[in-house]
Amino acid sequence: MSTMSSPKPQEGVCGLAEVMGPESWSKVSCPCCISAQVEPLVLIQLAEDVQPNTKQWIMSMISAPQESGGAGLLAHPGEDASWGRIVVAAPRCTLLKVTEDLGLCKADKDGNMITFSFNDRDKFSNIDDMEKFLTLAERQYVVKCGLESMRATKDLRIPGVSGDKGVLKSRQSIFQKLQKAKLILDVFPLRHERKLKTLGQEWYSQKSLWGQPLDRIHAYFGGSIAFYFSFLDFYTWALVPPAVVGLFITFFLPRWGSPDVDKITIPDLVNKSVSQDVDGDQLSVSGLMVQAVFSMIWSTVFMELWKRRSAALSYRWGCITLTERFQEPRPGFTGVQGINPVTGRLEPLFPDWKRQMRVGLVSVPVVLLFLGLVVLGMLGFYYFEAIMSSYHKATGSIITATLSYLPSVAHIIYTNILGNAYRNVAQRLTDYENHREESSYQNHHTTKVLVFTFFNNFAVLFHIAFYKQDLNLVRKRLSSLLILSQIVNQFTEVFVPYIVDRFYSSPEKELKEDDPEADHLQAEGSLPAFPGLFAEYIELLVQFGYLSLFSCVYPLTAVLLLLNNITEIRGDAYKICRLFRKPFSPPETGMGVWQAAFELLGFVSVVSNCWLLLLAPRVKAFTQDAGLSPAAVLVYAILVEHALIIIKLILAFMIPDEPDWVRIKREQIEYRSMKAVSQQKVKRVPTSELLPLKS
Amino acid sequence: MSTMSSPKPQEGVCGLAEVMGPESWSKVSCPCCISAQVEPLVLIQLAEDVQPNTKQWIMSMISAPQESGGAGLLAHPGEDASWGRIVVAAPRCTLLKVTEDLGLCKADKDGNMITFSFNDRDKFSNIDDMEKFLTLAERQYVVKCGLESMRATKDLRIPGVSGDKGVLKSRQSIFQKLQKAKLILDVFPLRHERKLKTLGQEWYSQKSLWGQPLDRIHAYFGGSIAFYFSFLDFYTWALVPPAVVGLFITFFLPRWGSPDVDKITIPDLVNKSVSQDVDGDQLSVSGLMVQAVFSMIWSTVFMELWKRRSAALSYRWGCITLTERFQEPRPGFTGVQGINPVTGRLEPLFPDWKRQMRVGLVSVPVVLLFLGLVVLGMLGFYYFEAIMSSYHKATGSIITATLSYLPSVAHIIYTNILGNAYRNVAQRLTDYENHREESSYQNHHTTKVLVFTFFNNFAVLFHIAFYKQDLNLVRKRLSSLLILSQIVNQFTEVFVPYIVDRFYSSPEKELKEDDPEADHLQAEGSLPAFPGLFAEYIELLVQFGYLSLFSCVYPLTAVLLLLNNITEIRGDAYKICRLFRKPFSPPETGMGVWQAAFELLGFVSVVSNCWLLLLAPRVKAFTQDAGLSPAAVLVYAILVEHALIIIKLILAFMIPDEPDWVRIKREQIEYRSMKAVSQQKVKRVPTSELLPLKS
Repeated sequence: MSTMSSPKPQEGVCGLAEVMGPESWSKVSCPCCISAQVEPLVLIQLAEDVQPNTKQWIMSMISAPQESGGAGLLAHPGEDASWGRIVVAAPRCTLLKVTEDLGLCKADKDGNMITFSFNDRDKFSNIDDMEKFLTLAERQYVVKCGLESMRATKDLRIPGVSGDKGVLKSRQSIFQKLQKAKLILDVFPLRHERKLKTLGQEWYSQKSLWGQPLDRIHAYFGGSIAFYFSFLDFYTWALVPPAVVGLFITFFLPRWGSPDVDKITIPDLVNKSVSQDVDGDQLSVSGLMVQAVFSMIWSTVFMELWKRRSAALSYRWGCITLTERFQEPRPGFTGVQGINPVTGRLEPLFPDWKRQMRVGLVSVPVVLLFLGLVVLGMLGFYYFEAIMSSYHKATGSIITATLSYLPSVAHIIYTNILGNAYRNVAQRLTDYENHREESSYQNHHTTKVLVFTFFNNFAVLFHIAFYKQDLNLVRKRLSSLLILSQIVNQFTEVFVPYIVDRFYSSPEKELKEDDPEADHLQAEGSLPAFPGLFAEYIELLVQFGYLSLFSCVYPLTAVLLLLNNITEIRGDAYKICRLFRKPFSPPETGMGVWQAAFELLGFVSVVSNCWLLLLAPRVKAFTQDAGLSPAAVLVYAILVEHALIIIKLILAFMIPDEPDWVRIKREQIEYRSMKAVSQQKVKRVPTSELLPLKS
Repeated sequence: MSTMSSPKPQEGVCGLAEVMGPESWSKVSCPCCISAQVEPLVLIQLAEDVQPNTKQWIMSMISAPQESGGAGLLAHPGEDASWGRIVVAAPRCTLLKVTEDLGLCKADKDGNMITFSFNDRDKFSNIDDMEKFLTLAERQYVVKCGLESMRATKDLRIPGVSGDKGVLKSRQSIFQKLQKAKLILDVFPLRHERKLKTLGQEWYSQKSLWGQPLDRIHAYFGGSIAFYFSFLDFYTWALVPPAVVGLFITFFLPRWGSPDVDKITIPDLVNKSVSQDVDGDQLSVSGLMVQAVFSMIWSTVFMELWKRRSAALSYRWGCITLTERFQEPRPGFTGVQGINPVTGRLEPLFPDWKRQMRVGLVSVPVVLLFLGLVVLGMLGFYYFEAIMSSYHKATGSIITATLSYLPSVAHIIYTNILGNAYRNVAQRLTDYENHREESSYQNHHTTKVLVFTFFNNFAVLFHIAFYKQDLNLVRKRLSSLLILSQIVNQFTEVFVPYIVDRFYSSPEKELKEDDPEADHLQAEGSLPAFPGLFAEYIELLVQFGYLSLFSCVYPLTAVLLLLNNITEIRGDAYKICRLFRKPFSPPETGMGVWQAAFELLGFVSVVSNCWLLLLAPRVKAFTQDAGLSPAAVLVYAILVEHALIIIKLILAFMIPDEPDWVRIKREQIEYRSMKAVSQQKVKRVPTSELLPLKS
């Protein structure tokens, strides 16, 4: 049940509707779409040099019906004072038709979420009130889809634009052309100040320390953002058990556990070379074991439970039957015009093998080059680390002790810079790969950045742990990474923008409560664009990596992360509400490729923890004392590792990926659609439109 | 394109139609189903003590329409001489409706396979000729579905049957009741002698040594059997590369490879304790490496290519949109009558948690008990093996050398007996678990038997290889297993039934060409029932296990298996055509759980081969010579193992599971069904029929 707040239907976004009466909007032909009030949803920012007839033409295309290449939306020329703007709204029919095209589910009169069907619309609840039927984020996303679907029906020239900039070929995407020709500078969804204020109060003010208003976040910001915050919320709660275990192991187990271990080991151990190693290690053997096994089970159960939660949210938000692959290709997709063999539509086609060639022959080598740069950075780090530590040993003052952290700091900065450069390269490479679907684009892009980030963040730690086998250095580095990166992140993500927001953009800020609408839009346009969730997810993934890969070295990791996340939630919430322009956020089924990344890390962590355990000095001492040869210890470790992986797989298999009630609801939808197919004559796609296929 | 042979439409199965004119068949009400000739498809064998009015009632239920609890089929009382038989045929409408219920795909007029829809039937090719539209196996399976769907519409008593045997409760399955009450003894599809003869000629006679007529097998025998033979065919061809590599390694590499290795090793090795081990080993280090890596890549590529082949066959045979979970539960399923929340139909319901309890608290302990018996057998084997070998050492004659094989032989027999007992137990346990869908039943059953078979066949080999570390014994045992089990299998599977068929059932055999129909049916009923594909798949899986798990110990495995499979194909084909009654075979999407089992074995094989390699004497000598400590060697082995698993995963991920053209066809079907949903008003399932669900 959506807890979406419902203002009086006619209020509209930021009260703009009061000023923009229906008379200035483009006219609607469809009788059901005529309404007393129009809700402005999206703002298009034109370039300053756009001619009046160009603006007129763009507006006419926006309001032209979809059959004739238009967007089927409503356009408003903006106020006199704000020449370069078009405000866009959506009539009821377009909203409903695009909802069907997206494959969204909506509640029927019985409260079941079923795939929306335009012909069958009377069956759905709230069908007469678009502000209740669709969330604000969905309405705005529909407008975006409408704008992106505009296509030239024949070769034509954009009025008032000379040269190549104005030439449109048949079937070319109009909106993309206008953006490339720099006629349209920007498109963004409009804020709804009152809703945003209510949301903010619930979200990041003092009132609610626990829990986030996820349904309202989904209603206002949309699917992908709501999923990020749901995951952040779930993850933060999930950190409580490892934090408690970490605290317990660090502060109770050594005192409680060591005498027991010492009783066995110390007598035989006194004059062996191992004894000095034991001093450096804070944990008992049993503590390490508990930590490693607990960490493995925790990461598995956490991911499985999140999948169930994710499935439940996906149903609740109507996203279990999305149909992206049957829609038009994403705007950035290029290719030779042809007929799509599946949908029979005329659209650009690009063969799979060409894409695979580009991935294999361009993307992979470039990614490898960057991984080489990471290794180079690592070697540099070791070089300076060695110099510093020998210098510290020679002098031994408190200054050189502080300086011994310098190479670590320098290396962290180097990896950050390299990371930013790589992010740009990854984006361009993925553009060049020319993916048809947005989700495929995102997956390839994310995978590229992930591989690099993983290398960038963990190569050094793995190297120290497994090649140098120096667990003290791992511990030192891990704690400095955790504390430093938290401070840096909080500072760059929240504090700097907050200061900028507070002191530099104050003139516009002051106007927010009851100023003329034009200034409102001005203020909104001047905010920076939201940078996307990529950096946020990466941050969580790297955190999760520190926690699951090296937790048995530094059990307090979870405690630090828990503290970080509690501030992170508020910080991210504040940021997205106040410091950035509202982003478009498509409806989504879940976290996509991030899900896989977290799961993969879970597997790597079993391996990592197993071998880290072997290297712990106490464990070494313990096994030496038990009279085991290094080879025998390794054989046991191999057996334990394989057993743990099998246990992990069995656990993951036993916990179903979706709750029973979601499964039943999903099967109901599938059964209904199966019945629909058999109960009617399917309208046939004319055979002439289908390409001949190998059979 | 189906290559199904098409006899003259009126011919029917075994020419029975000539005798059974339409006048003796039950009458059809539907005008489109009236035809001059009726094709007898299935035979029901009644008990001898069945009363005439009971037979009459059964026949009336078979021919009653489905809406009133009947099967909607045609029944024929059989000839005078054969009282206890009912011959069943299917009218056109029932054939088509059940085809839709099964979710089968059929070729439309353009040759594309699309999900069959009864309302839209005119769009499909061959729709007027049922013998071309559906294969013989499909028509017979439809009759089986029809018979199993008969349900009592109210509480009633079967005429002519006294006591509890005759009481039918409302909604109870009539057919299951009749079988439980021993009124119906047997149901089986009728053979089509002429088709069978043509098929046999193509299949197992001298003409075609290479390849099998898969489409004809599918048309005559049906989905699951066709998939088994397709896999057997594919697997046999896939054995050629490892057989060639195995031959090469065994006969060429040692001579060619050893000097190279010896050049490095021998000088430093002469007076070390390792040198005597080297004699026992036939292979060079490089040969072993090549074999292990090749085996890993081969098993991965083989399974991925089979998935593609399987997807192509599934499309070709119209099985990519089967809808088992929306159909009626399997006949063996029991539960409290209630309303299915997905389909809204009245049917038995059984909660999932109860099934899980039964699996966890009954099935798992019983399976573990049997695994214990396997271990017991293994210990016994070692005990006698030790006695025999000490005895052989003491005397050393050729008789004791032969006797040293005795414990192996005894153990193989023990495991076979245990295996047969376990098979019965597994069946009963799975019955008790009460699965709703046939496929779920099959998966649980298969998994149980697989776990046991794996243990039963490989526990000893693993024990010898990794615990005793005696590779010579592994080699001896593996070759005796391979050769012995092949001889035993061929003997019990083909030779014995052939002899029985040839010499003991000859009187009926002689009649086959042009005898009265009644004798024909008599002869058919006297054949043994087909025992199912279970044993056949298990045999292939165990073979595949020998090959992939231990190939680097005995590289000739693939050669032996290749020889075995070439005879196996002919043997199995002869068996199913001649020695057994024709079985029902449901349409299927692929190999089901067997696919997963083969893939799992692939993963275990990487691990197994890696560690076997370590134990090979030559490798031991090589590493000792290179000055590596056992711990260092283990670390390298761990790295190699993890790297190989990652390579395997990447390979499996890179090869798409279905060919591009199948993906496009499948997406076309999905797109059409999506369009169908949106282009009509869905007939609503009345809300009163749906249970309230948590939302």
